[in-house]
Amino acid sequence: MKLVNRILYFATGNEHKYREVASILNEANIKVEKFLVDRIEIQDNDPVKIAKFSLEMIKDAPTRIFNEDSGLNIKSLEGFPGPYSSYVYKTIGNEGIIALLDRKSNREAVFYSIIAYKDENDKIHIFSGETKGLISEKITGGEGWGFDPIFIPINEEGNKLTYSELGFKLKNTLSHRSKSLEKFSKFLSR
Amino acid sequence: MKLVNRILYFATGNEHKYREVASILNEANIKVEKFLVDRIEIQDNDPVKIAKFSLEMIKDAPTRIFNEDSGLNIKSLEGFPGPYSSYVYKTIGNEGIIALLDRKSNREAVFYSIIAYKDENDKIHIFSGETKGLISEKITGGEGWGFDPIFIPINEEGNKLTYSELGFKLKNTLSHRSKSLEKFSKFLSR
Repeated sequence: MKLVNRILYFATGNEHKYREVASILNEANIKVEKFLVDRIEIQDNDPVKIAKFSLEMIKDAPTRIFNEDSGLNIKSLEGFPGPYSSYVYKTIGNEGIIALLDRKSNREAVFYSIIAYKDENDKIHIFSGETKGLISEKITGGEGWGFDPIFIPINEEGNKLTYSELGFKLKNTLSHRSKSLEKFSKFLSR
Repeated sequence: MKLVNRILYFATGNEHKYREVASILNEANIKVEKFLVDRIEIQDNDPVKIAKFSLEMIKDAPTRIFNEDSGLNIKSLEGFPGPYSSYVYKTIGNEGIIALLDRKSNREAVFYSIIAYKDENDKIHIFSGETKGLISEKITGGEGWGFDPIFIPINEEGNKLTYSELGFKLKNTLSHRSKSLEKFSKFLSR
């Protein structure tokens, strides 16, 4: 069943994320409404398990609801901050990440995005996307939120700009989140 | 009902923690058996909520079971690593904490311990303890595990040694965990 022109519910309390996701899905004619919820997230190293659990724990959820979890895995920090990216951003921030990499030669990182979607039969589907990149030496200006000012996505053209410097429009052509959303929107348009 | 000489179950997979807790409780004649379980912990800023939730999520748990969550709150890092202390220790380690405090003048920290205990009537009781201290400039040697080599507990005698340098015996006279356990053991001996 085609879900184009139907409303989906996005379980999030993050206004930045809501706008980014809604804007990408709207381009595929998918309408998204925010479903405000006090999400219960588990501590686990598996982001798929976290996303599924969260969705299952929402009480009185409408059908056609989804959530999105993203995280940054920094290679020389054993994957830190991973599933705790949001907490780490709120506490030590981009400044902290830069300090942690001060004496490290390897600045490789992967940004991942996991979408868990509960369909009209209560079946859960997972869509994932990831973008490889480098942590910048400095916090850059520009648009963006979260770790956007320190993440330089790698592409075939040899990009050297962070998500923030690229700006929303260009970021959305190569971001981890746009990749998971693309799979999701293809699934919805079946 | 006095629980001295009865067996309590400690839900943990951490051998270090088990030995520390069992040794302190044994001195009060309380016997502790390890209850191995794949704990489900939620992501939350409230450690009491985490401990309670974890205990409630254990399926087929015996009665008289408890768990213990501890965490380090570093003042100049907005409370980081807090409830994610275990993950942070495994990834960036003590070296990472030292790097994060490199340019900070305030090295104050609080180590807290929360015990959640489910009694024979399935009622949950909470016992907490905390110890104020400072993060050391260097990782010290000595006994201990986790953040022990970088945490200097403050006491009236003007202690300048880390938990590790103090060694298990002295650590247990002033640690956050010994304080929550003391309240717990008083409760059990009522």
